[in-house]
Amino acid sequence: MAVGLSEPRQLLPVAGVRLAAIGAGIKPNKQRDDLVMIALDPGTTCASVFTRNAFCAAPVIVARQHLDTTPPRALLINSGNANAGTGQQGLDDASESCARVAEALGCLPQEVLPFSTGVIGENLPMTKLNAGIEAVAGRLDENSWMAAARGIMTTDTIAKACSRQISIDGTTITLTGFAKGSGMIHPDMATMLAFIFTDANTDADFLRHCLKHAADASFNCITVDGDTSTNDACILAATGKSGSEKLTGASAGSAQFAVAVEDVCTQLAQAIIRDGEGATKFVTVHVTSAASVEEARNVAFTIAHSPLVKTALFASDPNWGRILAAVGRAGIADLQIDGVDIYLDDVCIVEHGARAAMYTEEQGQQVMKRDEITITVSVSRGEAAATIWTTDLSHDYVTINSEYRS
Amino acid sequence: MAVGLSEPRQLLPVAGVRLAAIGAGIKPNKQRDDLVMIALDPGTTCASVFTRNAFCAAPVIVARQHLDTTPPRALLINSGNANAGTGQQGLDDASESCARVAEALGCLPQEVLPFSTGVIGENLPMTKLNAGIEAVAGRLDENSWMAAARGIMTTDTIAKACSRQISIDGTTITLTGFAKGSGMIHPDMATMLAFIFTDANTDADFLRHCLKHAADASFNCITVDGDTSTNDACILAATGKSGSEKLTGASAGSAQFAVAVEDVCTQLAQAIIRDGEGATKFVTVHVTSAASVEEARNVAFTIAHSPLVKTALFASDPNWGRILAAVGRAGIADLQIDGVDIYLDDVCIVEHGARAAMYTEEQGQQVMKRDEITITVSVSRGEAAATIWTTDLSHDYVTINSEYRS
Repeated sequence: MAVGLSEPRQLLPVAGVRLAAIGAGIKPNKQRDDLVMIALDPGTTCASVFTRNAFCAAPVIVARQHLDTTPPRALLINSGNANAGTGQQGLDDASESCARVAEALGCLPQEVLPFSTGVIGENLPMTKLNAGIEAVAGRLDENSWMAAARGIMTTDTIAKACSRQISIDGTTITLTGFAKGSGMIHPDMATMLAFIFTDANTDADFLRHCLKHAADASFNCITVDGDTSTNDACILAATGKSGSEKLTGASAGSAQFAVAVEDVCTQLAQAIIRDGEGATKFVTVHVTSAASVEEARNVAFTIAHSPLVKTALFASDPNWGRILAAVGRAGIADLQIDGVDIYLDDVCIVEHGARAAMYTEEQGQQVMKRDEITITVSVSRGEAAATIWTTDLSHDYVTINSEYRS
Repeated sequence: MAVGLSEPRQLLPVAGVRLAAIGAGIKPNKQRDDLVMIALDPGTTCASVFTRNAFCAAPVIVARQHLDTTPPRALLINSGNANAGTGQQGLDDASESCARVAEALGCLPQEVLPFSTGVIGENLPMTKLNAGIEAVAGRLDENSWMAAARGIMTTDTIAKACSRQISIDGTTITLTGFAKGSGMIHPDMATMLAFIFTDANTDADFLRHCLKHAADASFNCITVDGDTSTNDACILAATGKSGSEKLTGASAGSAQFAVAVEDVCTQLAQAIIRDGEGATKFVTVHVTSAASVEEARNVAFTIAHSPLVKTALFASDPNWGRILAAVGRAGIADLQIDGVDIYLDDVCIVEHGARAAMYTEEQGQQVMKRDEITITVSVSRGEAAATIWTTDLSHDYVTINSEYRS
């Protein structure tokens, strides 16, 4: 069950966005929605980041091509099948689904972006998908945000979504986003599937800048299992319908808008971790006084990926030796071990590279019993820091991933 | 339970080596031996490789210092406590134990090498250890090889040891080695604890060359969980008692001896994997036609470390999409995905980067049901190849590591 996470009580509609979700029969469980369509009003500006996995899925390839030619008018997202590792057939299927959406909505095929998530290596069931496209196109409305957030889920146990409103020059601007992801989570450049919409009026360059910066500070700071998906994608679409003046990097409200985008992305990224496969803990790993941000991130990710640290977290066992060993193998060639201090929340467990003099096992246990824990590591090498978020490694992770296809 | 591994029926004594094991009360289970002493005759030559973890344990630091001054006359190995992360006290304890061994055997403290394995971050119980040293010194004999192999075990379920004999110029040369290790297995430069003894007469440079080469081809090719231990060490000691002529790199028998060392190391390294924590499969990952050995190793380790690949192996699920995704994130910037072929044993599952045309799920399932599986990946980039050995990720891995200290 998700750690400290519940479904949002309310998601705010975003002017210029209509959406719908249905069950098209792609997932084995016919009770669950698996096809989401999102229509964007003309004039919408769009920014995107995609997976860096060399085996990116067919829809990622097609979506990139379409984004290069024209701004999108519609997104089509199916869950239950990733359309990855499917070769030319996969590309043909992704293109065909765009053509069907274009026909249904009266736009060009290049104005449609396809997204898929689910099992890798199986062809899309095109008959079901085409019938689903026709059906879902007839149900678009301005309020189906929760249904859309639920419709893109796979092993997720809870829908991940949030809304924010800010006021710039007296104009209210709304942002609503949703995301999915629970396993194969170690985004590289982009994340799982995340879709963020706003009625802000922005130029394209500024929107790209906001998304790049926000993704680096959010989706690129999380890991469940160190596995980078073939289908990661994050879309930020701005309809301009709020009626605000056009935001650029030089606008008075630009910083406020960028912060709001980062805030929504961070909320969604943390929600993915809270609902990580088998997660019983939400863990923040904070590395300080590193020589560079890259060094701080390497140490933080080495800790976050260590199966021994992760199983100790699952057991609520303050087995700090495993954290120490992870720091020691994180690739800092000239690490001075007596410069290393480690804290569990506010309890100092390692001081000058060895067990802290005042530390007692009881103090460590107190912290480890909590659902949310911060591991802070100081390496005494400089001024750089990094924060990443992760989960523990539980029996449920093994169960979920050894039964996923059966 | 260990995969395809049983205890050796016979271990051959090595002239010039005496050894003994007792229970000194360091492990909580008093039935189990936890202290091993090995005495080496004067004139023994020694080679060693140690962990590259920056947080190397106190005994590793002391052993390195001692090896820099003089060849060893004795090894002392305790299990149940790693004496790592213990600061100055740990160094003092390791030095004191060497002094006690020297006193008992009539040699210099610098001629004693200490080794420890077990829980990180607790001080050695010196009263028990000192009493144990006195007791074990009185029991040394030439035949206690199985007792020694068992005495260094921690979460291992089975002792790992083997013997080889070769004949060089009519002289029989014996090699006997034993090792321990089951979790925190991703050796970097050396491995877990491995001790190999031979009565060969060799010069020190040639012995070092043999061990370095053998360790790179064996212990440095295995991973259970990607965690590099603080205490990894591998020792190769040659007593010279076989009466053979001195082996150097230029000797006629040098290649034969080097192959025998590599053979023993490979046997022990594979035994560690077969007894990997929670292992139900012994998996060989073979990457071919890479641009460099480093590239081949990176791809192989990315597959071997992927929790999703490992849980699919546990489930005997031919979920090849997870292997494909791991190849895609292994850091080859200009990977041509249509150059990638993947085999499970002799079944081609991926051809030109997509599901092989002739592949059926039944074929994949047949292979995945086996206890021993080879995953072969060809990336069509060059002539380099690498082979590494790993295990699956099972419920037992999580159980073992969430209960290790409790």
